[in-house]
Amino acid sequence: MHTLLETHLPTLKQASDACRTRAQWSGFKESPSTRLHGEEAPAAGKRAFESLLGQPFELELPGVTGHLGEEVSPYTREPLGIDYPVADPEISCRAGLEAMRSWRRLDPDQRAALCIEMLRALESVCFESTHATMHTAGQSYMMGFVGSGANALDRGLEAVVYAHRALTDLPGHAVWRKAFGKTDVALEKRYHFVPRGLALVICCASFPTWNAYPSIMANLMTGNAAIVKPHPGGILPMAIAVREMRRVLAANGLDPNMVLLAVDTRDEPVAQRYLERGEVAIVDFTGSQRFGSWLEQNLGNKRIYTETSGVNSIVIESTDNLDGMLDAVAHSLCLFSAQMCTSPQNIHIPAGGVETDQGRIGPADLALALAGRVDARVGNPAQAAGLCGALQAQNTVELLARLADRAADVGELLRAPEPYAHPEYPNARTATPLIIATERPGQDVLKEEHFGPVSFVITHADPDSALASAAATAATRGAIATHVYSVDNDYLDAAEQSFVDAGASLTCNLTGPMPLNFAAAYSDMHVTGLNPAGNACLTDLAFVADRFRIVQCRWPQGTRTTT
Amino acid sequence: MHTLLETHLPTLKQASDACRTRAQWSGFKESPSTRLHGEEAPAAGKRAFESLLGQPFELELPGVTGHLGEEVSPYTREPLGIDYPVADPEISCRAGLEAMRSWRRLDPDQRAALCIEMLRALESVCFESTHATMHTAGQSYMMGFVGSGANALDRGLEAVVYAHRALTDLPGHAVWRKAFGKTDVALEKRYHFVPRGLALVICCASFPTWNAYPSIMANLMTGNAAIVKPHPGGILPMAIAVREMRRVLAANGLDPNMVLLAVDTRDEPVAQRYLERGEVAIVDFTGSQRFGSWLEQNLGNKRIYTETSGVNSIVIESTDNLDGMLDAVAHSLCLFSAQMCTSPQNIHIPAGGVETDQGRIGPADLALALAGRVDARVGNPAQAAGLCGALQAQNTVELLARLADRAADVGELLRAPEPYAHPEYPNARTATPLIIATERPGQDVLKEEHFGPVSFVITHADPDSALASAAATAATRGAIATHVYSVDNDYLDAAEQSFVDAGASLTCNLTGPMPLNFAAAYSDMHVTGLNPAGNACLTDLAFVADRFRIVQCRWPQGTRTTT
Repeated sequence: MHTLLETHLPTLKQASDACRTRAQWSGFKESPSTRLHGEEAPAAGKRAFESLLGQPFELELPGVTGHLGEEVSPYTREPLGIDYPVADPEISCRAGLEAMRSWRRLDPDQRAALCIEMLRALESVCFESTHATMHTAGQSYMMGFVGSGANALDRGLEAVVYAHRALTDLPGHAVWRKAFGKTDVALEKRYHFVPRGLALVICCASFPTWNAYPSIMANLMTGNAAIVKPHPGGILPMAIAVREMRRVLAANGLDPNMVLLAVDTRDEPVAQRYLERGEVAIVDFTGSQRFGSWLEQNLGNKRIYTETSGVNSIVIESTDNLDGMLDAVAHSLCLFSAQMCTSPQNIHIPAGGVETDQGRIGPADLALALAGRVDARVGNPAQAAGLCGALQAQNTVELLARLADRAADVGELLRAPEPYAHPEYPNARTATPLIIATERPGQDVLKEEHFGPVSFVITHADPDSALASAAATAATRGAIATHVYSVDNDYLDAAEQSFVDAGASLTCNLTGPMPLNFAAAYSDMHVTGLNPAGNACLTDLAFVADRFRIVQCRWPQGTRTTT
Repeated sequence: MHTLLETHLPTLKQASDACRTRAQWSGFKESPSTRLHGEEAPAAGKRAFESLLGQPFELELPGVTGHLGEEVSPYTREPLGIDYPVADPEISCRAGLEAMRSWRRLDPDQRAALCIEMLRALESVCFESTHATMHTAGQSYMMGFVGSGANALDRGLEAVVYAHRALTDLPGHAVWRKAFGKTDVALEKRYHFVPRGLALVICCASFPTWNAYPSIMANLMTGNAAIVKPHPGGILPMAIAVREMRRVLAANGLDPNMVLLAVDTRDEPVAQRYLERGEVAIVDFTGSQRFGSWLEQNLGNKRIYTETSGVNSIVIESTDNLDGMLDAVAHSLCLFSAQMCTSPQNIHIPAGGVETDQGRIGPADLALALAGRVDARVGNPAQAAGLCGALQAQNTVELLARLADRAADVGELLRAPEPYAHPEYPNARTATPLIIATERPGQDVLKEEHFGPVSFVITHADPDSALASAAATAATRGAIATHVYSVDNDYLDAAEQSFVDAGASLTCNLTGPMPLNFAAAYSDMHVTGLNPAGNACLTDLAFVADRFRIVQCRWPQGTRTTT
């Protein structure tokens, strides 16, 4: 343990400083380059992934009653053929509670060191995990490595920072003296940091690690055992994570059951069986707004942290960089086939057109230009593969077909969602962006989230109504990332105030190589908790401070021999 | 504002340091002595109180539709005759939301300075407030001054500290730079601290200020307007507080509607009308476990912070100071007629008796000795008046009669709850403690809270079962303050672990002048949130961190002129 502390506490300090300054920092290797990882690592990671296929997944868990697995690769459309151990919920919960008892004796520094050791273990299998993410979520290789790897690990470390901060806000022990009349009273006080109970971490299919790592870390730091419940279509990345975390726990003489796995199938979901149990005190949920909202409304005796989804908007009023703006927006419409919680859907423009460095451009021309930029990005299959990846779910293919069919009801079909030919995986489930233009902003279809590469270019009477519509949708339907383009300072100020009121974070005039979707650990606040897109932020003090409680014990000073 | 900052920020710093060290500190005058307040202050405060009687209460509120008031003094049993303005909930909420818009521009330091100015204003009317508390809650003069005055103000300041800490955890503004490929991206980021909405602060009848001050302060600091909903039987102390806070807001050019008042009667309660409104995002509740639990379970879309009640236990295994222990316990059974959330109810002792510095004493003798110490405390009416005060509610009189009548069903009536003759108020609603001894620990009546001067001396087979029973009651029925007396280190360790598991704070072997009930601001953690006695702690990071959310706005560095 001493070595772990020496190795990892400097990292904790650096990460904590970054959280305070909100300046750029990363604790992990953000590129898959062999210069960082060595020549062998990428191929070895791929082989490790391949060796898992068609096999029972090797993971010892308490209370195993059978095996299951129904994952299908979005790239090959073949079953992965991996069976995972199924644990009995009651035995699993009992094992988690038991593990919490031994974990309790660790102080915040020790917990942080162990958590960072786990994150390092996850980094050591980053290539294996990348392929696991690709063949379950459909992410591209680069996104699987960076977004689901290094960036997700940074989010995990960020949660360690905040939990450590909350746990060290009080001393463990204090002496208190006060005169009552003529008598001095001196008391010793000990503060116990008591976890709430078990935490069920429910993961999404398309980007599981990015939310699950911080949730697991927040729970472990605050003493709650984490029961990881992956999406039935995306078990493997989380099974690998659970395997590595349990390995670190065991290697350090700790009960591995601080991290457990609960797998299920679409036909026989298991979450409810855990939610019914009183010892499950915390739920971390990433997924649909419907289920997230149900959890928030109906489980008043548990702490619920949700990140769901929303309808993200881009409002375009004017720009001094038309090409840069079109490129940035087109990139974001393609990136991971817009299967990200930060992907934009609604592009709001004024009927009078947009003033740009290339002159005023009308709504129809702007929409066409945008579609053209998308075409340019997906015309080359290799480029499309790197940018769009594959569609995680068959549902999304069907959604695209339905929306394309009824495009004329909504407005004008600007761009049809054709599959592209993936150069490496001929059977890959792919689609390029569907874009529909409309001059009728009031339609209900525009207020719904359409998960996948779907966007609407919506023409409004004027810039103010464009902004008001985007903000109203954010407030009522949720939004995680919104954007505005304007060279008018007053318009930007109004946009900032409108989106603050709607509880949606805003990015202004972003062009250049940083994707619109990018959210930086230690700097960007992700999900505000103020609109239906979720009730929690990854990661802030509120994300951690109520996962544990403080119980005190006090006694007259010097009257007790305690350890 | 500059002067306010200069005056009050040093106080904030001292209070913050106390919260970190948990050492003794107070920001307010903890004694009513004229040496601290001047010769005139006590009498002037009493006159101020008397001038309120039989009059409409002077308070301008938005949307007043009428007046009401039905308070009756527990000391005189006469109506106070004060009518308070009734505000229309919709207009009241609209006014609160409007006030929040101007409050927003204040930074955390400015908010803290204003909040401390409000606390100082409350201190300046401390004698008026003391009499208001006496004649609604039934507290004695000293308790009304210290417990409901200085100590409550300290709790309010403690909430200011934690909220300030949470609000300053992030900078308001940051610059972030990162290379994407060969391009450097530099973004400015602004973090908005956005309140959740309106907060309804529902107060209890017997000790309103102690919980309401921290709740109001936590809400104001985080930007949420506070709608104070006093108990219909205890409006006056909160109306005075609202009047003073609004006066400070107005005097500093701020919208006074950051603090509003919602009064009602027992027959026509108004809380539900506020709870139905979506803009009421936070509820701070002090009161019954039943309503608190209903709020927790059924208002999943609001943030609920509760302090309710529980069954507090004292476990006596052994002592090296029998006289000190008996005095301490007897004092606590009498203090404010045990109408405090920290009052003990169940006294658990082993059948084999208790080893003491005066030899082993059997359960029957111990119970009799305890009853004798109570007798000694309440035999002198002047002493009884200072210690017991009056019974807040007529219900309590009836409860005592019912329990005394059926004492033989439970065990043996050790001490009957006789009224004592209050020397100043002959009509005062008073009662001395009811004590029942029993050898049957399993009875349901022992697992319920009986609000008022009711206690049971419960004999168990052995010390371990005494402890187990007390801890089980705490876990399942809630407990806020528990006590153990033992000279055996191992027993103390076991007790500490048992109560930690039950989520109840523990005090060991307390004797001497500090009352068992005393909870020190900046040092003691009050309510753990781990058992049915409430879900929140006054005050910690969790009490404040989720009352506001963070919305960010980012833009390429240098591209925007912002204020």
